[in-house]
Amino acid sequence: MQPQGEFDLIARYFKRPAPSGMLGIGDDCALLSPAQGCDLAVSTDMLVEGRHFFADGDPRRLGHKALAVNLSDLAAMGARPLACTLALSLPRLDNAWLQAFADGFHALSRDAQCPLVGGDTTGGARQVVLCITVMGEVRRHQALRRDAARQGDDLWVSGVLGAADIALRLMQGSLPPDPDRLALCRSALETPTPRLRLGRYLAGVAHAAIDISDGLLQDLGHVLDASQCAADLWLDTLPAHAALAGLDDTVRRDAVLAGGDVYELCFTAHPRRREQITTLSRQLKLPITRVGAIRRGTGLRVLDALGREIPVPRRGFDHFSISQT
Amino acid sequence: MQPQGEFDLIARYFKRPAPSGMLGIGDDCALLSPAQGCDLAVSTDMLVEGRHFFADGDPRRLGHKALAVNLSDLAAMGARPLACTLALSLPRLDNAWLQAFADGFHALSRDAQCPLVGGDTTGGARQVVLCITVMGEVRRHQALRRDAARQGDDLWVSGVLGAADIALRLMQGSLPPDPDRLALCRSALETPTPRLRLGRYLAGVAHAAIDISDGLLQDLGHVLDASQCAADLWLDTLPAHAALAGLDDTVRRDAVLAGGDVYELCFTAHPRRREQITTLSRQLKLPITRVGAIRRGTGLRVLDALGREIPVPRRGFDHFSISQT
Repeated sequence: MQPQGEFDLIARYFKRPAPSGMLGIGDDCALLSPAQGCDLAVSTDMLVEGRHFFADGDPRRLGHKALAVNLSDLAAMGARPLACTLALSLPRLDNAWLQAFADGFHALSRDAQCPLVGGDTTGGARQVVLCITVMGEVRRHQALRRDAARQGDDLWVSGVLGAADIALRLMQGSLPPDPDRLALCRSALETPTPRLRLGRYLAGVAHAAIDISDGLLQDLGHVLDASQCAADLWLDTLPAHAALAGLDDTVRRDAVLAGGDVYELCFTAHPRRREQITTLSRQLKLPITRVGAIRRGTGLRVLDALGREIPVPRRGFDHFSISQT
Repeated sequence: MQPQGEFDLIARYFKRPAPSGMLGIGDDCALLSPAQGCDLAVSTDMLVEGRHFFADGDPRRLGHKALAVNLSDLAAMGARPLACTLALSLPRLDNAWLQAFADGFHALSRDAQCPLVGGDTTGGARQVVLCITVMGEVRRHQALRRDAARQGDDLWVSGVLGAADIALRLMQGSLPPDPDRLALCRSALETPTPRLRLGRYLAGVAHAAIDISDGLLQDLGHVLDASQCAADLWLDTLPAHAALAGLDDTVRRDAVLAGGDVYELCFTAHPRRREQITTLSRQLKLPITRVGAIRRGTGLRVLDALGREIPVPRRGFDHFSISQT
């Protein structure tokens, strides 16, 4: 087969008609029209083969996940997706890989109403590197910022925790092989669902929010630092995924408290919002669990059912744990 | 030295106070407030070590150029910069490199009033990969789109052409060593100036515009394809950079017509705009030269001073000239 130009590759795999009112792929810039009275929310993530995904992983699932992790940032801000861009650096042109990747990407892009409006593809890479930027809109002053938690707020978590961590450990071999368990938790790792509807409902209702992509303790820690307050987290209330059943206590606790790659929202809200949030949970058919409280001071305490503090290492996923020169 | 976390790296090299009304680095998303009545222009570019820049190149100049090539896309759309994001994948943490890169990046970011509001840094890469996304605003219906050229339009080019191509050839050794010549043209390749002021003035004045990053023939070809019209390009009028003096005719012609990495604007405008554009050229102290005309039909002809057509290969820089699997 002949070498294939950059422009053919974009047209073949990635170009879709732009929604009305937008200018999509094919000009120097894309053009969007954010709604009046809205702020623009922007997030960017880079995924590197061998670090954020396996080289031999399923490209369709990768296409989904690469976009999902970015959409999760919009969800955590309470923003509605507007559009996204994709930059892709490839060591070689593999048509089957590209087709499957594009299929997974476009399927979620369509579901989330987040059209791909611009991109860049390049060769000469020694490994696959993806960079996605998402843009969304959120009514002015209603964004769910990290620095907005207030003393006396309830602390909530959506969904169930720990599945992605266990899936990763099973796939990496740091837990003994267990195909049934892996079947239960693999989709949490590979095709997570960004909580966009939840995020949009929470804008104007909740105070602070964050997604738990780096682990609950670490990400909640960011909220506390930014909001200059403290929190109690009630260990027994934390909703664990069914795939954690029967595992060693330490492994379970670690997965729930520190396991990364969780695209659920952790948020704070005034106690008078409890009924509203419980109703929302029913409407969305999504568990939303009250797991603690924000208090004055600094630091994060994890408490057992009797209110005793449990020592836990505060840690999570560090994207750059390599030594420097 | 100890390993350094992702968050320290961002804080140390890249975090700057966000301008008033914006939320910058440190939340799930950045928040911007585009002006009412404006469209949002978005462009993204990925740069890969060994392909778009030399591994041993000056990191300060790289920081400048990485942002400049993206700002040039905003200029070509007639947009005013609003903010940018930067994702950076690194094989190792090299503090001196990062500091110099960040200095070059921030200096241009400040000059262009395009604050860095979000980003991502990651390790585990086998080579340096950068991805920048720029966002700008342009008054609705005034963006300089590729599909807006009209029959009878004049064809204009800003600045002078060919310098980056000659610099690249000298540095790669495909032209014999010539330190004086390299000194003349190196900055065009390494620290190009995006034509932001020109682009903003042209919004609402010119019809189509594009930057010449892939070479004049190829980029003008994109305008003609998108606008479904043809053009004559007058070879003798094309403004050549002083560094081309004394070079072989074929090398000069090739550099001017097909040399990439030129961050000048090629645009079309109604002939009644000539005086306005000439005045603008004086105000900006930037040559703006009328180099041809848009006509009915398809295709691009290059004509000599006697109006005879000159055969030229229509080509430019292809970002993906590798063979596929």
